[in-house]
Amino acid sequence: MNYSMILYILGFVLKFEAGFLLLPAVTGLVYGEFSGVYYLITAVVCAVLGYLLGRKEPKSMMLYTREGFVSVALSWIVMSVFGALPMTLCGDIPFYVDSLFETISGFTTTGASICPDVELLTHATQFWRSFTHWIGGMGVFVFIMAILPMMGGSTMNLMKAESPGPSVGKLVPHVKDTAKILYGLYLGITVAEAILLIVFGMPVFDALTTTFGTVGTGGFGIKADSIASYSSTLQWIVTIFMIMSGINYTAYYLILVKKFKDAFSIEEVRWYLAIVLIAGAVITVNVRGFYDSWGETLKHAFFQVASIITTTGFATTDFDLWPEMSKTILVILMFIGACAGSTGGGMKVSRFVILFKTIRKELSIIIHPREIKKIRMDGHAIEHEVVRATNVFLAIYFVILLGSVLLISVDEFSFTTNFTAVAATLNNIGPGLDLVGPTRNFAAFNVFSKFVLMFDMLAGRLELFPVMVMMLPSTWKRK
Amino acid sequence: MNYSMILYILGFVLKFEAGFLLLPAVTGLVYGEFSGVYYLITAVVCAVLGYLLGRKEPKSMMLYTREGFVSVALSWIVMSVFGALPMTLCGDIPFYVDSLFETISGFTTTGASICPDVELLTHATQFWRSFTHWIGGMGVFVFIMAILPMMGGSTMNLMKAESPGPSVGKLVPHVKDTAKILYGLYLGITVAEAILLIVFGMPVFDALTTTFGTVGTGGFGIKADSIASYSSTLQWIVTIFMIMSGINYTAYYLILVKKFKDAFSIEEVRWYLAIVLIAGAVITVNVRGFYDSWGETLKHAFFQVASIITTTGFATTDFDLWPEMSKTILVILMFIGACAGSTGGGMKVSRFVILFKTIRKELSIIIHPREIKKIRMDGHAIEHEVVRATNVFLAIYFVILLGSVLLISVDEFSFTTNFTAVAATLNNIGPGLDLVGPTRNFAAFNVFSKFVLMFDMLAGRLELFPVMVMMLPSTWKRK
Repeated sequence: MNYSMILYILGFVLKFEAGFLLLPAVTGLVYGEFSGVYYLITAVVCAVLGYLLGRKEPKSMMLYTREGFVSVALSWIVMSVFGALPMTLCGDIPFYVDSLFETISGFTTTGASICPDVELLTHATQFWRSFTHWIGGMGVFVFIMAILPMMGGSTMNLMKAESPGPSVGKLVPHVKDTAKILYGLYLGITVAEAILLIVFGMPVFDALTTTFGTVGTGGFGIKADSIASYSSTLQWIVTIFMIMSGINYTAYYLILVKKFKDAFSIEEVRWYLAIVLIAGAVITVNVRGFYDSWGETLKHAFFQVASIITTTGFATTDFDLWPEMSKTILVILMFIGACAGSTGGGMKVSRFVILFKTIRKELSIIIHPREIKKIRMDGHAIEHEVVRATNVFLAIYFVILLGSVLLISVDEFSFTTNFTAVAATLNNIGPGLDLVGPTRNFAAFNVFSKFVLMFDMLAGRLELFPVMVMMLPSTWKRK
Repeated sequence: MNYSMILYILGFVLKFEAGFLLLPAVTGLVYGEFSGVYYLITAVVCAVLGYLLGRKEPKSMMLYTREGFVSVALSWIVMSVFGALPMTLCGDIPFYVDSLFETISGFTTTGASICPDVELLTHATQFWRSFTHWIGGMGVFVFIMAILPMMGGSTMNLMKAESPGPSVGKLVPHVKDTAKILYGLYLGITVAEAILLIVFGMPVFDALTTTFGTVGTGGFGIKADSIASYSSTLQWIVTIFMIMSGINYTAYYLILVKKFKDAFSIEEVRWYLAIVLIAGAVITVNVRGFYDSWGETLKHAFFQVASIITTTGFATTDFDLWPEMSKTILVILMFIGACAGSTGGGMKVSRFVILFKTIRKELSIIIHPREIKKIRMDGHAIEHEVVRATNVFLAIYFVILLGSVLLISVDEFSFTTNFTAVAATLNNIGPGLDLVGPTRNFAAFNVFSKFVLMFDMLAGRLELFPVMVMMLPSTWKRK
């Protein structure tokens, strides 16, 4: 293990966090809240620590895959450990483990909260919570690539850990250029949503925090009823931007360079949109009796579908009260998740497409043993390695899922609560059903269960492998 | 498709079913019940139909894999369709779809029942229900191999579909000899349990039906409270025979030929016993407060663990009332299931061992990229094909599981009910939790949901692939 290089990277990450922490500090200043001071203090601590860690340049800049995985996982953990400090110091979230839960939930763009009433938090903390989504949104993926250009060729190892899903789609040959384009697109969508929300009457503070939660597919709100109290127009705007945020960013790049045909023929995106449409339509019919008009029903159905499949976690209605069929559809959407190459979580649509194609191929081999079939996507044969990685992903996923449900069952909550709590954190969604439904929160779990769920959030966000590698003792041998 | 050969096989199967149906007919005679007559009538119908189908020898005896898969799946369906008739004709189960559910549940050794009160059934029906477990127990696996010796080399194709789990362990080179040995072992264990139960005071009728349910890992009981009303000694005997029935039969063969060391070093069996011990111990501690003494607690804990992991489904206590942790352990055991090469269902211990080893190998590759690792089991490297088949199995399993939970959610029962109903049928266990808990039954589901669950029982029993192949339209093309 190249420990000095890992510490060097963590130093960089801390320096950036210091910069980010200045924004909630300013927010505190604007609203005349004392809590802003704690964000400033933490920023200084991060800056000093970052400076100390980054002072000595490591002898070797080489990063092997395992070191890439470990440094990415540690980056998220270190950022969360420090990012959680001001929330507890200022008294908004008195218990540090809860702050840590909240911050990991933020950086992993999960949106699962332990706050009984988010409206009681100071503006600085409300801003920081939402802003962690925006920071986490693109993943350390773009984040680290843009700020660590000195790493050259080995950056790919970090990408491997960060890329959400099996394929990011190589936009352009150079990693640095890719990062810039993605970053630009991300910023563009952010600005577009914020402006639209403000234009259609949302207060500026609300518009900013809601936008961070949307484009980062996070889901922290600043109101107890999430997005329910805003106008229908605003809710539809959020719905559309949620759906947009779940699309593979490769599509936007292709649109940017005017390759419209290519953009609209991406298989994963087509499947994704088809699932959104079908799920939304079925739920609309299923919950019609709950609302006054078809328009109202349509709005709630598509908002919740978009919120869950993109793993955002906003809500306009308490879907825990919906009929079992709609709830089951939402639970299945939790597992499918958004497109690879988006800020969304879950298993990713492309993985499901690959799984379905694998199943079809294997069955077809039984029926026509002499035919030679290759799994194809977007017209290209998929490499065997990708199929294998998808299968192994599913195996690890299944084991973590069952294991976590077992571990948090010590709390003696219902099976629905435990199962959807794990599903909602492992897939980086936020709310589940029953005790962790959209109007409830994760506060009731004990410290042990909270750590299990924190692990799940990190595991889900980092595509399982980095945290698994980090957990193996043999990773840490000097060698 | 070699249709004439498939019909020929179905003819054979029906002739055998005719023979089996004579036993409940005799039972009816013994107890002076008129219901026995309907079993006799059905036996005659099966015999006539079997004779007609088997009269014309097919031109080609060749069976390709897909035909092997289809004929196995059809055998189960045809046997269930006819086996269900007398239950409805005699009035024990008035609604035919319910009878079909009950019979599929029997032949697939599931034990999920739609009977509100099994004690109201006539003895003939009680006997037949339990006997279907015994027939299904070894699977058409041994069944067909022993009665269709004319098929020669192509028999392996049938075995492929029938073998419970990824590896049956080639006991002896010749399929016919294997069948005889397995059949002998099965009969031996059956006789041993029945005698032991009778010796320790169980009435003969109860002993027979309980034994059928145990060795077939089925779980239909003849009492409303399953095994709860029998003495502790009898319950322990059933526990031990359940655990024995979940062991890979290769172990018994090795003991038979005095290769004790080999028998006790089978990795799968060791894992299986370790899981039983650990799960039993944890549950014992967890449910201690529910019972009067440690002995009582130990008995109930191990009975339920054995019942669920072997996918039998008997109960001595209402485990739906147990704490959430114990229930979650049972749900996880539902998925693990028994050993491959046993009569049990579930995903099989060996598949889990292979999955864990695959995960370990993949993670190890990340840490030590230059090491070449092979997955080994019982000292032998596992073929790539087996690993791939395991992964594809998991993918299909996951899709069927989620899809079924969605489909039966139309009934608007709780998520726990739906999830465990699918888990209990797909893994061929029997009872689940909540509305399908050990003291309840599956009667409340509507016809559509019942068909979904019947599909799950068949899919689970036949290791997913045969029913999937049967469902594909291209399977049924003449060429």
